[in-house]
Amino acid sequence: MKSHTEYLTFNIPARMDFVNITGDVAECVLKSGVQEGLCLVNAMHITASVFINDDEKGLHADYKKWLEELAPFDPSPQVYRHNRTGEDNADAHMKRQVMGREVVVAITKGKLDFGPWEQIFYGEFDGHRPKRVLVKIIGE
Amino acid sequence: MKSHTEYLTFNIPARMDFVNITGDVAECVLKSGVQEGLCLVNAMHITASVFINDDEKGLHADYKKWLEELAPFDPSPQVYRHNRTGEDNADAHMKRQVMGREVVVAITKGKLDFGPWEQIFYGEFDGHRPKRVLVKIIGE
Amino acid sequence: MKSHTEYLTFNIPARMDFVNITGDVAECVLKSGVQEGLCLVNAMHITASVFINDDEKGLHADYKKWLEELAPFDPSPQVYRHNRTGEDNADAHMKRQVMGREVVVAITKGKLDFGPWEQIFYGEFDGHRPKRVLVKIIGE
Repeated sequence: MKSHTEYLTFNIPARMDFVNITGDVAECVLKSGVQEGLCLVNAMHITASVFINDDEKGLHADYKKWLEELAPFDPSPQVYRHNRTGEDNADAHMKRQVMGREVVVAITKGKLDFGPWEQIFYGEFDGHRPKRVLVKIIGE
Repeated sequence: MKSHTEYLTFNIPARMDFVNITGDVAECVLKSGVQEGLCLVNAMHITASVFINDDEKGLHADYKKWLEELAPFDPSPQVYRHNRTGEDNADAHMKRQVMGREVVVAITKGKLDFGPWEQIFYGEFDGHRPKRVLVKIIGE
Repeated sequence: MKSHTEYLTFNIPARMDFVNITGDVAECVLKSGVQEGLCLVNAMHITASVFINDDEKGLHADYKKWLEELAPFDPSPQVYRHNRTGEDNADAHMKRQVMGREVVVAITKGKLDFGPWEQIFYGEFDGHRPKRVLVKIIGE
Protein backbone atom coordinates (compact mmCIF):
# COMPACT_ATOMS: atom_id res chain seq x y z
CA MET A 1 0.00 0.00 0.00
CA LYS A 2 1.23 3.47 -0.92
CA SER A 3 0.29 6.65 0.90
CA HIS A 4 0.87 10.32 0.15
CA THR A 5 0.14 13.43 2.26
CA GLU A 6 0.07 17.07 1.21
CA TYR A 7 -1.04 20.32 2.82
CA LEU A 8 -2.34 23.11 0.57
CA THR A 9 -2.65 26.66 1.94
CA PHE A 10 -5.27 29.19 0.86
CA ASN A 11 -5.62 32.84 1.88
CA ILE A 12 -8.96 34.06 0.54
CA PRO A 13 -9.30 37.88 0.26
CA ALA A 14 -13.02 37.83 1.11
CA ARG A 15 -15.17 36.64 4.00
CA MET A 16 -16.92 34.03 1.80
CA ASP A 17 -15.70 32.62 -1.51
CA PHE A 18 -15.15 29.37 -3.44
CA VAL A 19 -11.90 28.37 -5.18
CA ASN A 20 -11.53 25.51 -7.67
CA ILE A 21 -8.70 23.30 -6.33
CA THR A 22 -9.17 20.34 -8.70
CA GLY A 23 -5.84 20.99 -10.41
CA ASP A 24 -3.96 21.02 -7.09
CA VAL A 25 -5.54 17.74 -6.01
CA ALA A 26 -4.91 16.11 -9.41
CA GLU A 27 -1.23 17.04 -9.04
CA CYS A 28 -1.11 15.34 -5.62
CA VAL A 29 -2.60 12.18 -7.17
CA LEU A 30 0.05 12.23 -9.91
CA LYS A 31 2.86 12.67 -7.35
CA SER A 32 1.49 9.81 -5.21
CA GLY A 33 1.93 7.26 -7.98
CA VAL A 34 -1.32 5.61 -6.84
CA GLN A 35 -3.25 3.90 -9.67
CA GLU A 36 -6.20 2.49 -7.68
CA GLY A 37 -7.22 3.99 -4.36
CA LEU A 38 -8.97 6.72 -2.41
CA CYS A 39 -8.18 10.43 -2.09
CA LEU A 40 -9.42 12.33 0.97
CA VAL A 41 -9.52 16.13 0.70
CA ASN A 42 -10.59 18.02 3.83
CA ALA A 43 -10.56 21.51 5.26
CA MET A 44 -8.32 21.58 8.36
CA HIS A 45 -10.21 24.61 9.70
CA ILE A 46 -13.73 24.51 11.07
CA THR A 47 -15.09 27.57 9.27
CA ALA A 48 -14.14 26.24 5.82
CA SER A 49 -15.36 23.46 3.53
CA VAL A 50 -14.19 21.19 0.78
CA PHE A 51 -17.01 20.18 -1.56
CA ILE A 52 -17.66 18.99 -5.10
CA ASN A 53 -19.99 20.84 -7.43
CA ASP A 54 -20.12 22.91 -10.61
CA ASP A 55 -17.58 25.58 -11.64
CA GLU A 56 -20.21 28.13 -12.63
CA LYS A 57 -20.08 31.70 -11.28
CA GLY A 58 -23.84 32.15 -11.20
CA LEU A 59 -24.23 29.04 -9.06
CA HIS A 60 -21.55 30.26 -6.67
CA ALA A 61 -23.43 33.56 -6.28
CA ASP A 62 -26.60 31.54 -5.60
CA TYR A 63 -24.79 29.46 -2.95
CA LYS A 64 -23.57 32.61 -1.18
CA LYS A 65 -27.04 34.15 -1.09
CA TRP A 66 -28.64 30.88 0.03
CA LEU A 67 -26.11 30.20 2.79
CA GLU A 68 -26.51 33.78 4.01
CA GLU A 69 -30.26 33.14 4.30
CA LEU A 70 -29.80 29.80 6.09
CA ALA A 71 -27.16 31.13 8.53
CA PRO A 72 -26.85 34.92 8.39
CA PHE A 73 -23.64 36.67 9.43
CA ASP A 74 -24.26 38.52 12.67
CA PRO A 75 -21.34 39.49 14.93
CA SER A 76 -23.55 40.31 17.92
CA PRO A 77 -23.31 37.96 20.93
CA GLN A 78 -27.11 38.32 21.33
CA VAL A 79 -27.83 36.36 18.15
CA TYR A 80 -25.07 33.74 18.38
CA ARG A 81 -23.70 32.65 21.77
CA HIS A 82 -20.44 31.59 20.12
CA ASN A 83 -19.77 35.27 19.46
CA ARG A 84 -19.60 35.89 23.24
CA THR A 85 -16.11 34.37 23.04
CA GLY A 86 -14.90 37.42 21.12
CA GLU A 87 -15.33 35.66 17.75
CA ASP A 88 -17.74 36.97 15.13
CA ASN A 89 -17.87 33.81 13.00
CA ALA A 90 -20.63 31.57 14.43
CA ASP A 91 -22.44 31.79 11.08
CA ALA A 92 -19.34 30.40 9.32
CA HIS A 93 -19.44 27.25 11.49
CA MET A 94 -23.00 26.66 10.27
CA LYS A 95 -22.36 27.40 6.61
CA ARG A 96 -19.51 24.90 6.76
CA GLN A 97 -21.84 22.14 8.05
CA VAL A 98 -24.23 22.66 5.11
CA MET A 99 -21.42 22.52 2.54
CA GLY A 100 -19.40 19.79 4.32
CA ARG A 101 -15.85 19.34 5.65
CA GLU A 102 -14.47 16.82 3.19
CA VAL A 103 -14.76 14.81 0.03
CA VAL A 104 -13.48 11.31 -0.70
CA VAL A 105 -12.74 10.72 -4.37
CA ALA A 106 -11.94 7.45 -6.12
CA ILE A 107 -8.65 7.12 -7.99
CA THR A 108 -8.96 4.84 -11.02
CA LYS A 109 -6.13 4.21 -13.52
CA GLY A 110 -4.06 6.92 -11.84
CA LYS A 111 -6.68 9.67 -12.10
CA LEU A 112 -9.49 11.27 -10.07
CA ASP A 113 -12.53 9.25 -11.19
CA PHE A 114 -14.99 12.06 -11.88
CA GLY A 115 -18.34 12.55 -13.57
CA PRO A 116 -18.56 15.13 -16.38
CA TRP A 117 -19.02 18.25 -14.22
CA GLU A 118 -17.42 17.32 -10.90
CA GLN A 119 -14.89 19.87 -9.63
CA ILE A 120 -13.40 20.16 -6.13
CA PHE A 121 -13.79 23.49 -4.31
CA TYR A 122 -12.31 25.04 -1.23
CA GLY A 123 -15.14 26.94 0.45
CA GLU A 124 -14.20 29.81 2.74
CA PHE A 125 -16.70 31.31 5.20
CA ASP A 126 -14.36 33.39 7.40
CA GLY A 127 -11.52 34.50 5.18
CA HIS A 128 -8.71 37.06 5.19
CA ARG A 129 -6.22 34.59 6.72
CA PRO A 130 -4.24 31.53 5.61
CA LYS A 131 -5.94 28.17 6.11
CA ARG A 132 -4.88 24.64 5.19
CA VAL A 133 -6.43 21.79 3.22
CA LEU A 134 -5.21 18.22 3.71
CA VAL A 135 -4.88 15.78 0.80
CA LYS A 136 -4.37 12.15 1.87
CA ILE A 137 -4.05 9.44 -0.75
CA ILE A 138 -3.89 5.70 -0.11
CA GLY A 139 -3.86 2.84 -2.61
CA GLU A 140 -1.60 0.98 -4.97
CA MET B 1 -4.49 -4.53 -1.36
CA LYS B 2 -7.50 -5.31 -3.55
CA SER B 3 -9.59 -2.71 -5.37
CA HIS B 4 -12.85 -2.90 -7.26
CA THR B 5 -14.67 -0.24 -9.32
CA GLU B 6 -18.24 -0.24 -10.60
CA TYR B 7 -20.53 2.31 -12.23
CA LEU B 8 -24.27 2.03 -11.62
CA THR B 9 -26.70 3.96 -13.85
CA PHE B 10 -30.08 5.32 -12.76
CA ASN B 11 -32.76 7.03 -14.83
CA ILE B 12 -35.35 8.41 -12.43
CA PRO B 13 -38.79 9.18 -13.95
CA ALA B 14 -39.38 12.19 -11.67
CA ARG B 15 -37.64 15.44 -10.92
CA MET B 16 -36.96 14.42 -7.30
CA ASP B 17 -36.96 10.91 -5.85
CA PHE B 18 -35.00 8.47 -3.70
CA VAL B 19 -34.05 4.90 -4.67
CA ASN B 20 -32.71 2.24 -2.30
CA ILE B 21 -29.43 0.99 -3.85
CA THR B 22 -28.20 -1.07 -0.87
CA GLY B 23 -28.59 -4.35 -2.77
CA ASP B 24 -26.56 -3.06 -5.75
CA VAL B 25 -23.74 -1.91 -3.46
CA ALA B 26 -23.78 -5.17 -1.45
CA GLU B 27 -23.36 -7.05 -4.73
CA CYS B 28 -20.30 -4.93 -5.61
CA VAL B 29 -18.79 -5.76 -2.19
CA LEU B 30 -19.36 -9.47 -2.81
CA LYS B 31 -17.76 -9.27 -6.27
CA SER B 32 -14.76 -7.37 -4.87
CA GLY B 33 -13.80 -10.22 -2.56
CA VAL B 34 -12.76 -7.64 0.04
CA GLN B 35 -13.19 -8.85 3.66
CA GLU B 36 -11.90 -5.77 5.53
CA GLY B 37 -11.89 -2.35 3.90
CA LEU B 38 -13.78 0.75 2.84
CA CYS B 39 -16.52 1.23 0.25
CA LEU B 40 -17.02 4.68 -1.29
CA VAL B 41 -20.37 5.30 -3.01
CA ASN B 42 -20.80 8.69 -4.70
CA ALA B 43 -23.05 10.44 -7.18
CA MET B 44 -21.03 11.33 -10.31
CA HIS B 45 -23.48 14.13 -11.12
CA ILE B 46 -23.75 17.38 -9.20
CA THR B 47 -27.54 17.52 -8.93
CA ALA B 48 -27.77 14.10 -7.27
CA SER B 49 -26.84 12.60 -3.90
CA VAL B 50 -25.89 9.36 -2.26
CA PHE B 51 -26.91 9.22 1.40
CA ILE B 52 -27.76 6.76 4.15
CA ASN B 53 -31.05 6.88 6.00
CA ASP B 54 -34.30 5.02 6.58
CA ASP B 55 -36.31 3.17 3.89
CA GLU B 56 -39.65 4.62 4.97
CA LYS B 57 -41.98 6.26 2.43
CA GLY B 58 -43.37 8.82 4.85
CA LEU B 59 -39.87 10.02 5.69
CA HIS B 60 -39.04 10.34 1.99
CA ALA B 61 -42.16 12.48 1.48
CA ASP B 62 -41.01 14.60 4.45
CA TYR B 63 -37.54 15.00 2.94
CA LYS B 64 -39.02 16.17 -0.39
CA LYS B 65 -41.23 18.77 1.30
CA TRP B 66 -38.41 19.96 3.56
CA LEU B 67 -35.85 20.25 0.75
CA GLU B 68 -38.40 22.14 -1.35
CA GLU B 69 -38.77 24.62 1.53
CA LEU B 70 -35.00 24.98 2.02
CA ALA B 71 -34.24 25.38 -1.70
CA PRO B 72 -37.41 25.85 -3.79
CA PHE B 73 -37.48 24.91 -7.46
CA ASP B 74 -37.69 28.10 -9.53
CA PRO B 75 -36.64 28.11 -13.19
CA SER B 76 -36.54 31.91 -13.44
CA PRO B 77 -33.10 33.53 -13.87
CA GLN B 78 -34.26 36.31 -11.52
CA VAL B 79 -34.31 34.02 -8.48
CA TYR B 80 -31.23 31.90 -9.25
CA ARG B 81 -28.36 33.33 -11.32
CA HIS B 82 -27.34 29.82 -12.33
CA ASN B 83 -30.53 29.64 -14.35
CA ARG B 84 -29.24 32.46 -16.61
CA THR B 85 -27.08 29.77 -18.23
CA GLY B 86 -30.20 28.19 -19.73
CA GLU B 87 -30.42 25.61 -16.92
CA ASP B 88 -33.42 25.45 -14.58
CA ASN B 89 -31.81 23.32 -11.86
CA ALA B 90 -30.04 25.69 -9.45
CA ASP B 91 -32.27 24.40 -6.66
CA ALA B 92 -31.08 20.84 -7.35
CA HIS B 93 -27.45 21.89 -6.71
CA MET B 94 -28.53 23.14 -3.28
CA LYS B 95 -30.67 20.15 -2.35
CA ARG B 96 -27.70 17.94 -3.20
CA GLN B 97 -25.43 19.84 -0.75
CA VAL B 98 -27.91 19.28 2.11
CA MET B 99 -28.20 15.55 1.41
CA GLY B 100 -24.51 15.05 0.49
CA ARG B 101 -22.53 13.67 -2.47
CA GLU B 102 -21.18 10.46 -1.01
CA VAL B 103 -21.04 7.89 1.75
CA VAL B 104 -18.09 5.84 2.94
CA VAL B 105 -19.10 2.50 4.46
CA ALA B 106 -16.94 0.05 6.40
CA ILE B 107 -16.61 -3.51 5.09
CA THR B 108 -16.20 -6.03 7.93
CA LYS B 109 -16.04 -9.82 7.42
CA GLY B 110 -16.95 -9.35 3.75
CA LYS B 111 -20.12 -7.31 4.35
CA LEU B 112 -21.31 -3.69 4.60
CA ASP B 113 -20.98 -2.99 8.33
CA PHE B 114 -24.35 -1.36 9.00
CA GLY B 115 -26.48 -0.40 11.97
CA PRO B 116 -30.02 -1.85 12.16
CA TRP B 117 -31.75 0.71 9.90
CA GLU B 118 -28.98 1.95 7.61
CA GLN B 119 -29.84 1.80 3.91
CA ILE B 120 -28.04 3.50 1.01
CA PHE B 121 -30.08 5.78 -1.25
CA TYR B 122 -29.53 7.44 -4.59
CA GLY B 123 -31.14 10.88 -4.34
CA GLU B 124 -32.22 12.55 -7.57
CA PHE B 125 -33.03 16.28 -7.71
CA ASP B 126 -33.09 16.84 -11.49
CA GLY B 127 -34.25 13.58 -13.03
CA HIS B 128 -35.61 12.31 -16.35
CA ARG B 129 -32.14 11.36 -17.62
CA PRO B 130 -29.53 8.67 -16.94
CA LYS B 131 -26.94 9.45 -14.27
CA ARG B 132 -24.11 7.40 -12.79
CA VAL B 133 -23.08 6.36 -9.29
CA LEU B 134 -19.51 5.21 -8.59
CA VAL B 135 -18.73 2.36 -6.20
CA LYS B 136 -15.05 2.09 -5.24
CA ILE B 137 -13.91 -0.60 -2.85
CA ILE B 138 -10.43 -0.99 -1.38
CA GLY B 139 -9.19 -3.42 1.23
CA GLU B 140 -8.08 -6.98 1.71
CA MET C 1 -2.59 -3.56 4.79
CA LYS C 2 -3.80 -3.42 8.40
CA SER C 3 -7.40 -2.92 9.46
CA HIS C 4 -9.05 -2.28 12.80
CA THR C 5 -12.75 -2.12 13.76
CA GLU C 6 -14.34 -0.79 16.93
CA TYR C 7 -17.86 -0.04 18.08
CA LEU C 8 -18.41 2.75 20.61
CA THR C 9 -21.74 3.03 22.45
CA PHE C 10 -23.32 6.28 23.64
CA ASN C 11 -26.48 6.78 25.69
CA ILE C 12 -27.23 10.51 25.69
CA PRO C 13 -29.57 11.70 28.50
CA ALA C 14 -31.19 14.37 26.30
CA ARG C 15 -33.10 14.49 23.06
CA MET C 16 -30.34 16.54 21.33
CA ASP C 17 -26.72 16.91 22.43
CA PHE C 18 -23.11 16.77 21.22
CA VAL C 19 -20.31 14.74 22.82
CA ASN C 20 -16.60 15.10 22.06
CA ILE C 21 -15.36 11.63 21.10
CA THR C 22 -11.90 12.62 19.82
CA GLY C 23 -10.13 10.80 22.68
CA ASP C 24 -12.04 7.55 22.00
CA VAL C 25 -11.15 7.68 18.30
CA ALA C 26 -7.50 8.55 19.00
CA GLU C 27 -7.32 5.46 21.23
CA CYS C 28 -8.66 3.29 18.38
CA VAL C 29 -5.96 4.69 16.09
CA LEU C 30 -3.28 3.86 18.66
CA LYS C 31 -4.60 0.31 19.06
CA SER C 32 -4.71 -0.20 15.29
CA GLY C 33 -0.97 0.32 14.93
CA VAL C 34 -1.63 2.13 11.64
CA GLN C 35 0.94 4.84 10.84
CA GLU C 36 -0.41 6.03 7.47
CA GLY C 37 -4.03 5.51 6.50
CA LEU C 38 -7.66 6.54 6.79
CA CYS C 39 -10.04 6.47 9.75
CA LEU C 40 -13.80 6.34 9.12
CA VAL C 41 -16.06 7.31 12.02
CA ASN C 42 -19.81 7.01 11.43
CA ALA C 43 -23.05 6.93 13.34
CA MET C 44 -24.68 3.52 12.94
CA HIS C 45 -28.10 5.03 13.68
CA ILE C 46 -30.01 7.27 11.31
CA THR C 47 -31.07 9.93 13.82
CA ALA C 48 -27.49 10.63 14.92
CA SER C 49 -24.40 12.25 13.39
CA VAL C 50 -20.65 12.21 13.56
CA PHE C 51 -19.12 15.55 12.62
CA ILE C 52 -16.00 17.65 13.14
CA ASN C 53 -16.16 21.15 14.53
CA ASP C 54 -15.24 23.29 17.54
CA ASP C 55 -15.50 22.20 21.20
CA GLU C 56 -17.16 25.42 22.34
CA LYS C 57 -20.35 25.35 24.40
CA GLY C 58 -21.77 28.55 22.96
CA LEU C 59 -21.41 27.17 19.43
CA HIS C 60 -23.16 23.96 20.45
CA ALA C 61 -26.08 25.99 21.84
CA ASP C 62 -26.15 27.89 18.52
CA TYR C 63 -26.22 24.63 16.56
CA LYS C 64 -29.16 23.34 18.61
CA LYS C 65 -31.18 26.52 18.08
CA TRP C 66 -30.33 26.65 14.36
CA LEU C 67 -31.17 22.98 13.74
CA GLU C 68 -34.45 23.43 15.62
CA GLU C 69 -35.30 26.30 13.25
CA LEU C 70 -34.31 24.33 10.13
CA ALA C 71 -36.17 21.15 11.16
CA PRO C 72 -38.42 21.72 14.21
CA PHE C 73 -39.37 18.85 16.50
CA ASP C 74 -43.05 18.09 16.04
CA PRO C 75 -44.48 14.70 17.04
CA SER C 76 -47.76 15.21 15.17
CA PRO C 77 -48.36 13.03 12.09
CA GLN C 78 -49.94 16.07 10.40
CA VAL C 79 -46.60 17.89 10.12
CA TYR C 80 -44.32 14.94 9.35
CA ARG C 81 -45.69 11.86 7.57
CA HIS C 82 -42.90 9.75 9.09
CA ASN C 83 -44.59 10.24 12.46
CA ARG C 84 -47.65 8.32 11.18
CA THR C 85 -45.54 5.19 11.76
CA GLY C 86 -45.78 5.76 15.53
CA GLU C 87 -42.37 7.47 15.65
CA ASP C 88 -41.99 11.08 16.74
CA ASN C 89 -38.49 11.65 15.36
CA ALA C 90 -38.87 12.78 11.73
CA ASP C 91 -37.11 16.03 12.65
CA ALA C 92 -34.10 14.04 13.91
CA HIS C 93 -33.68 12.40 10.47
CA MET C 94 -33.42 15.89 8.96
CA LYS C 95 -31.08 17.34 11.57
CA ARG C 96 -28.78 14.38 10.96
CA GLN C 97 -28.61 15.13 7.21
CA VAL C 98 -27.50 18.73 7.89
CA MET C 99 -24.77 17.63 10.33
CA GLY C 100 -23.75 14.50 8.38
CA ARG C 101 -23.42 10.75 9.07
CA GLU C 102 -19.67 10.34 9.04
CA VAL C 103 -16.19 11.79 8.92
CA VAL C 104 -13.09 10.38 7.26
CA VAL C 105 -9.87 11.49 8.94
CA ALA C 106 -6.30 11.05 7.71
CA ILE C 107 -3.82 9.17 9.90
CA THR C 108 -0.29 10.51 9.52
CA LYS C 109 2.69 9.29 11.56
CA GLY C 110 0.34 7.23 13.74
CA LYS C 111 -1.97 10.10 14.69
CA LEU C 112 -5.22 11.76 13.60
CA ASP C 113 -3.97 14.47 11.21
CA PHE C 114 -5.98 17.46 12.47
CA GLY C 115 -6.00 21.22 12.09
CA PRO C 116 -5.68 23.34 15.26
CA TRP C 117 -9.37 23.25 16.31
CA GLU C 118 -10.69 20.05 14.78
CA GLN C 119 -12.53 17.80 17.25
CA ILE C 120 -14.82 14.84 16.49
CA PHE C 121 -18.35 14.91 17.90
CA TYR C 122 -21.13 12.41 18.27
CA GLY C 123 -24.36 14.32 17.56
CA GLU C 124 -27.55 12.93 19.02
CA PHE C 125 -30.99 14.09 17.79
CA ASP C 126 -33.24 11.43 19.37
CA GLY C 127 -31.54 10.37 22.59
CA HIS C 128 -32.42 8.53 25.80
CA ARG C 129 -31.24 5.16 24.41
CA PRO C 130 -27.93 3.49 23.57
CA LYS C 131 -26.60 3.98 20.03
CA ARG C 132 -23.39 2.84 18.34
CA VAL C 133 -20.61 4.58 16.45
CA LEU C 134 -18.33 2.60 14.14
CA VAL C 135 -14.60 3.30 13.86
CA LYS C 136 -12.90 1.60 10.91
CA ILE C 137 -9.21 2.12 10.29
CA ILE C 138 -7.23 0.91 7.28
CA GLY C 139 -3.63 1.58 6.37
CA GLU C 140 -0.09 0.51 7.17
